[in-house]
Amino acid sequence: MGGDYAPKAVIEGAVSASGSLGTYDEIILVGKEKVLGKILGKRRGEKAAISIVNADSVITNDETPSKAVRRKKDSSIVVGMNLLKYDDGDVFISAGNTGAILAGGLFILERIKGISRPALATVYPVIGNVPSLIIDAGANAECRPAFLLEFGIMGSIYIEKVLGRKNPTVGLINNGTEPHKGTSLTKEAYKLLEESRLNFIGNIETRELQNAVCDVIVTDGFTGNAVIKLTEGMGLMVLRELKTMFMKDIRSKAGAVLMKDQLKKLRTEFDYKEYGGAPVLGLKKPVLKMHGSSDERAVRQTILKAVPYVKNDVCGMIERSVREYRPQGHRTGFTGSGEKDHE
Amino acid sequence: MGGDYAPKAVIEGAVSASGSLGTYDEIILVGKEKVLGKILGKRRGEKAAISIVNADSVITNDETPSKAVRRKKDSSIVVGMNLLKYDDGDVFISAGNTGAILAGGLFILERIKGISRPALATVYPVIGNVPSLIIDAGANAECRPAFLLEFGIMGSIYIEKVLGRKNPTVGLINNGTEPHKGTSLTKEAYKLLEESRLNFIGNIETRELQNAVCDVIVTDGFTGNAVIKLTEGMGLMVLRELKTMFMKDIRSKAGAVLMKDQLKKLRTEFDYKEYGGAPVLGLKKPVLKMHGSSDERAVRQTILKAVPYVKNDVCGMIERSVREYRPQGHRTGFTGSGEKDHE
Repeated sequence: MGGDYAPKAVIEGAVSASGSLGTYDEIILVGKEKVLGKILGKRRGEKAAISIVNADSVITNDETPSKAVRRKKDSSIVVGMNLLKYDDGDVFISAGNTGAILAGGLFILERIKGISRPALATVYPVIGNVPSLIIDAGANAECRPAFLLEFGIMGSIYIEKVLGRKNPTVGLINNGTEPHKGTSLTKEAYKLLEESRLNFIGNIETRELQNAVCDVIVTDGFTGNAVIKLTEGMGLMVLRELKTMFMKDIRSKAGAVLMKDQLKKLRTEFDYKEYGGAPVLGLKKPVLKMHGSSDERAVRQTILKAVPYVKNDVCGMIERSVREYRPQGHRTGFTGSGEKDHE
Repeated sequence: MGGDYAPKAVIEGAVSASGSLGTYDEIILVGKEKVLGKILGKRRGEKAAISIVNADSVITNDETPSKAVRRKKDSSIVVGMNLLKYDDGDVFISAGNTGAILAGGLFILERIKGISRPALATVYPVIGNVPSLIIDAGANAECRPAFLLEFGIMGSIYIEKVLGRKNPTVGLINNGTEPHKGTSLTKEAYKLLEESRLNFIGNIETRELQNAVCDVIVTDGFTGNAVIKLTEGMGLMVLRELKTMFMKDIRSKAGAVLMKDQLKKLRTEFDYKEYGGAPVLGLKKPVLKMHGSSDERAVRQTILKAVPYVKNDVCGMIERSVREYRPQGHRTGFTGSGEKDHE
């Protein structure tokens, strides 16, 4: 029920993905049964089965996340997450209210022991190169140094297990490359990352992000959000400018004809939808958050991406390895809910 | 002496700017007299006179700013700023160590009464539109809410006095548009800006920056630095991609010929050098910081931009109006150096 084009785009995406999944796989659509049933019609999935589980209400984007999750027990987010909690589902995917997905994740699925804060990990598109993963892309606006170390650990495990890149490199967004640069947060996080067993390459400036300098880009959720949205805005601006440029006069229109294939390629590279949803890492079960503007293709991509996320047991891996990666003798000083970390 | 192409580019830029200044204007080159004199040769400026004031040492980019400024009394930054202090100069321009320029500004020129922290205000290039001003672009990585209010005030005065735009709009970079969004810093800054007499339009997401949504973009120096450098990196990437695209094969090369004028225009819009240096606002005297990679043209642009900055007495305007813009009954709680604000 979540996202700008829901439920139609979500259902069409599920139908499309179903053909590329296995025959024993199952896609469960969670939402108002009547509405979903009407759009789904008689289609039952090409290969993977598609079923519907009813949820009478919807958490909108205007609602206060934690309150909405606690009150609306019959919302699609709460019902869907409960499927995972009681092992009736393996991965939860949504294009809905990000805050509610995070709050629901914390309340219903719970965070992994040793992780202070679950974080949103988004693919950072590097034009003409392998994309990086940026974590936190917006879940935690205010962070402590230990959170950033954990983001690095979770991001590395995800890159290795889901994207198959060995010994991923980790960089820390900072306002200069030297170790002494930055805020008290980045300075302290630098030390923790440096002492950890991660493949830490040091501080990176945002100027370098488009040069694919590392696999995992670590930052706090406020900066991550700013970086992701600016990249998106710049991409849209470039496409808009190119369009104007190629429609200007007869000469440029002729140029556009000659450049057709190249332009198409560029447009694809700037298109976020190709990359699918963003994993919420640090929860006991896999959760993927899709962009609010996700269309059929984005939904399809996200569902397919969910398979290695589940099959490679990324959540279990994080739970088992978070301690190994930490600097020796390091204890998380803060656990987010007042209780002590049981390490 | 500062910047990647100094002193040659700086001297050439000064010579070029001299022709567009008045005959009673004067450009003073501060640095090693022998080195500068050799490059300057017999040129004495087309219109404005060009002279040299000797400074035996240079503060490099690796030095700790405050220490370097205190120790190297004979450095070009310290000597240059002292010219302003003793009224032998009206504006200080440098492409050198940003930290040293800020530290020198604080120690030698001093901050304006009522301003907690001087800030770097950079033109934010909006492709195909009037550029915005982003403040703080990197001087203060860690900020308090009151600083952000002051950034808004200083930015508004600069836009009005130097760029001639009446009643400039002010936006606050945040991770959502709703007033309750953000960190404790942005939430509190929102309230102060809202209650002030500025033309505050609310929170803006970085996705909107390319849509010229406001004249003054207010943010902390860490985020501002990330935004500026990312925009720069994305711009370079786009130009690189376009080049590859147009050089791909014979068809695209033919397309490039047809698009020549349009491409040139786009390249200019993405080019930071067109915009010249960034004012350091909040000091008692005008200071402009140029990009480290400034070439002759960037130096020329910055020198010309310095004229309205001085003539319209922006520093005096800030000193006189900082109180008027503040919310009624508001007092700066923090002044940065332990002393009380004498409001």
